[in-house]
Amino acid sequence: MEQPTTRDRAYMQRCIALARQAAGQTAPNPMVGSVIVQGDEVVGEGFHPKAGEPHAEVFALRAAGDRARGATLYVNLEPCNHTGRTPPCTEAILAAGIRRVVVGMVDPDPRVSGNGLQRLKAAGLEVLSGVEEADCQRLNEAFVHRVTQHRPFGILKYAMTLDGKIAATGGHSAWVTGPAARQRVHQLRARCDAVIVGGQTVRADNPHLTTHGQSDRAPLRVVMSRRLALPTQAHLWQVETAPTVVFCGADRDRDIQAALEDQGVEVVVDDAPAPRRVLENLYARGHAQVLWECGGQLAAHAIATGCVQRVWAFVAPKWVGGAQAPTPIGELGIVRMDQAISLTQVSVQSVGDDTLFIADVAALERSPST
Amino acid sequence: MEQPTTRDRAYMQRCIALARQAAGQTAPNPMVGSVIVQGDEVVGEGFHPKAGEPHAEVFALRAAGDRARGATLYVNLEPCNHTGRTPPCTEAILAAGIRRVVVGMVDPDPRVSGNGLQRLKAAGLEVLSGVEEADCQRLNEAFVHRVTQHRPFGILKYAMTLDGKIAATGGHSAWVTGPAARQRVHQLRARCDAVIVGGQTVRADNPHLTTHGQSDRAPLRVVMSRRLALPTQAHLWQVETAPTVVFCGADRDRDIQAALEDQGVEVVVDDAPAPRRVLENLYARGHAQVLWECGGQLAAHAIATGCVQRVWAFVAPKWVGGAQAPTPIGELGIVRMDQAISLTQVSVQSVGDDTLFIADVAALERSPST
Repeated sequence: MEQPTTRDRAYMQRCIALARQAAGQTAPNPMVGSVIVQGDEVVGEGFHPKAGEPHAEVFALRAAGDRARGATLYVNLEPCNHTGRTPPCTEAILAAGIRRVVVGMVDPDPRVSGNGLQRLKAAGLEVLSGVEEADCQRLNEAFVHRVTQHRPFGILKYAMTLDGKIAATGGHSAWVTGPAARQRVHQLRARCDAVIVGGQTVRADNPHLTTHGQSDRAPLRVVMSRRLALPTQAHLWQVETAPTVVFCGADRDRDIQAALEDQGVEVVVDDAPAPRRVLENLYARGHAQVLWECGGQLAAHAIATGCVQRVWAFVAPKWVGGAQAPTPIGELGIVRMDQAISLTQVSVQSVGDDTLFIADVAALERSPST
Repeated sequence: MEQPTTRDRAYMQRCIALARQAAGQTAPNPMVGSVIVQGDEVVGEGFHPKAGEPHAEVFALRAAGDRARGATLYVNLEPCNHTGRTPPCTEAILAAGIRRVVVGMVDPDPRVSGNGLQRLKAAGLEVLSGVEEADCQRLNEAFVHRVTQHRPFGILKYAMTLDGKIAATGGHSAWVTGPAARQRVHQLRARCDAVIVGGQTVRADNPHLTTHGQSDRAPLRVVMSRRLALPTQAHLWQVETAPTVVFCGADRDRDIQAALEDQGVEVVVDDAPAPRRVLENLYARGHAQVLWECGGQLAAHAIATGCVQRVWAFVAPKWVGGAQAPTPIGELGIVRMDQAISLTQVSVQSVGDDTLFIADVAALERSPST
């Protein structure tokens, strides 16, 4: 079997870098970049900017023009072979006279996976797949999760003191971390389709949940509050800044509902508002990646029902104490340390004076209760 | 003023390395190493092995013999100029014909600080002080704290999950961290004069609190338990492994006291058993460095009364959850995040799968309540 060359791997990394330029913009589509190389020369580059716009290959082929003939096309995701909002990329590749196609990973959708590569091979093109595959998978892990699990990928973010508290005993939490850490959170929000909090966070912190200038695009702000025990004035209700949707139960306070709707807030009434139900709704909106920025109780509920795949935990060099002070994760039903949920692929980095842990959440063995 | 040369600094680092060979063995004395250099040749080395034994300079002078004449003597702490359990080192240096003395730091005891250097200068020797001073101060920070504060230096060690819990909701804590982290704790114990826990830790964990082969010397095991609500069988009562002392109040259970004393445990009855009182007792025993390995409530008491100068916090990549699960530090009386106790000089390192934070505890502005 053909092995990728060093140049193949370098061009694939360039595809990834191009793709990332649209981070947070492409859902429900993946991030895709493409490079066309004629001899030693890059003759075309492109990336998919957002759903509804052409795919990366099309931009690259347009840039290459006639010089695509006989060239090699690199793309981090298998070219599509079906007509969606845009025509199949395989046909565009064939029409342009591309001789060789190098692909990072196959399409994760089991219904179409491999079809694009087969079409190209059948037409006589040289096809190499799986180049820099781990990085390509990581780039689009949220998209892959969405396609295979039919739910958006969930990231839980919290900031705690070195004694494990997310707020002081009185509930006061401004600020646990320093400005560099808070900026990293704003950047993370810009790569997410929604940011989710509970009613308690709205009441205690009155957050903005915006990207604070880190992106032109604002993620959807989501509040889960069964009874709508919420203030009628809050930063989140200022929808000219960013859209906000509130999920509540049938027993919600209808006066509050009316007050929120008057301000342009969308209110979704559900018989059983729970993390899974909210993610179903966000999936239907095309979301690929959501950020849980909630308190410990909702975080525990989201974790226990498989709605969290990754954690961003900031640890600040300070102590606040308090046996009753809030901690990042509430009741999980774990009574012994050897039943703990494992975190894997842990990375630890300094962010200003704080320390950021990023890790994957091991799939739960227990069956979700909701 | 004379500046140290590169060689001066290198020999001082050698003194520090020699001194460290007796880490944990020297209290109430400091760790001291000495090197004697004739021309380019090291002609004598020594370190202070333990209280009651000769000082480092004496060992180095003995090793150098006649070759000390006209040589340079390096030592990380100002030579003593008074007769204690051993004669003054200054006289031994003069008698040996040393020409130049290079010192890391002056004696921290304000009553004698500088006397040794003055004696040597008055006798016509060339004296250079303050070489690699920061490292020398760090080496003997516990001794310095003891001498200047009249209390042992306190290190608080705890191990928590990435969601800030030191045990699961049921109190079960074996194990939060992995074997590499636990070995680091055993090594840390070997450098401490005492390890302190509360009665709750004895009841919940039945710990050994030994160095598990990391040192021949065992630190004193200290339990604080006001009423002596303790099991009569416990690893800590096996005093053939290591000595144990229990501090209790006047309202202790006298049957338990008798049961412990029968097993060779020392019981100290105090009207007001509190961290400060215990440290006074340990100071009188000559202790320089103690390790708090207690639960959150006693840790908070020790912190609030100025008994903790440094923290070793291990963070394990796991979640256990639980709004009621124990956290490392109990009530400090802090109700707002901006009143948090700052940790400084933070170092973060990987230890196996776990992460170790070592930091200094900023002095409290609030007055201690005892």
